Amino acid sequence: MLLCDIGNSNANFLDDNKYFTLNIDQFLEFKNEQKIFYINVNEHLKEHLKNQKNFINLEPYFLFDTIYQGLGIDRIAACYTIEDGVVVDAGSAITIDIISNSIHLGGFILPGIANYKKIYSHISPRLKSEFNTQVSLDAFPQKTMDALSYGVFKGIYLLIKDAAQNKKLYFTGGDGQFLANYFDHAIYDKLLIFRGMKKIIKENPNLLY
Amino acid sequence: MLLCDIGNSNANFLDDNKYFTLNIDQFLEFKNEQKIFYINVNEHLKEHLKNQKNFINLEPYFLFDTIYQGLGIDRIAACYTIEDGVVVDAGSAITIDIISNSIHLGGFILPGIANYKKIYSHISPRLKSEFNTQVSLDAFPQKTMDALSYGVFKGIYLLIKDAAQNKKLYFTGGDGQFLANYFDHAIYDKLLIFRGMKKIIKENPNLLY
Repeated sequence: MLLCDIGNSNANFLDDNKYFTLNIDQFLEFKNEQKIFYINVNEHLKEHLKNQKNFINLEPYFLFDTIYQGLGIDRIAACYTIEDGVVVDAGSAITIDIISNSIHLGGFILPGIANYKKIYSHISPRLKSEFNTQVSLDAFPQKTMDALSYGVFKGIYLLIKDAAQNKKLYFTGGDGQFLANYFDHAIYDKLLIFRGMKKIIKENPNLLY
Repeated sequence: MLLCDIGNSNANFLDDNKYFTLNIDQFLEFKNEQKIFYINVNEHLKEHLKNQKNFINLEPYFLFDTIYQGLGIDRIAACYTIEDGVVVDAGSAITIDIISNSIHLGGFILPGIANYKKIYSHISPRLKSEFNTQVSLDAFPQKTMDALSYGVFKGIYLLIKDAAQNKKLYFTGGDGQFLANYFDHAIYDKLLIFRGMKKIIKENPNLLY
């Protein structure tokens, strides 16, 4: 079974248990005969995907309890297997969603870590810097690189901690492993979105035929 | 007395008690015969300013107790009149500096509010949105505009609160008044940087002649 989660920068695939990533240009070149079950948040690819007859959009099959208007299908899929907890998907944006008793309580959005770096470099050449991924969040920074890193990492940390209270934390996405390290007992699950997609297929077995 | 604080986007002037702002293009056209005491963090203007003989750079006169490497002169000036407290300068970047007994304990940096908006719109057209400046920081957001606003405003709020502990808060810069509203007993002082510059001139009266 081939699953595909298409974002703004990349398309992530799960081919049975093999995970791989294509960037959007590579994805447009990607040819395959088998059925591909997908979700997509990339507006530019919506028309293209409609014309690929082996691509099956799982979005209409998700029944998800939320009052959030216009929740992205990637966020729904990431939350879909979680009964209680906070789901953090750290990619080009960082989305944080709170689930209680299988009900989505709301969520919020931050720029992804690489995009923070980009915006700093646009503000001033003095703020163009790599991040110090080892920066202490317990001491005030004493140089620009640390000051930028602390602003980003401690800001993300405090927001997640505040949202989580005592809930379980589930991280996914490219920077998920790194951010999970700031928390005790956090779970990093690279395949969280695919688990949601698999659950949908299990709930709708006719999709396979 | 004419004072000028030059940043990356704007040059702010204080002409006796009259405050005005020029953008950088307007600043380059600005002609004046009188002495202008200035500080500048804009790398592109350093050469230009050296050639203006009525422009007097106050930067060398600041004696400031810090181990922070390369602290911007605008941040030094904003902190220069504060004995104890947290100084937040919210412009194209947001800088947060902590002072105790006239010693600078360190500081950190965030993108300015307008630059958060810019980066969201670059990540995805779905994240291109105005901010809701009224968004509640006490309830999880239920739509994209609120999710983006909460991520930015609550992130900034939590970082400042965490840094401040029980210290006094001093806000300045274009978004300083807005951010000050999130805190009880916060002081918004539009002229904080100019107060630092005036203190320098008072300490070095020969500068006037």
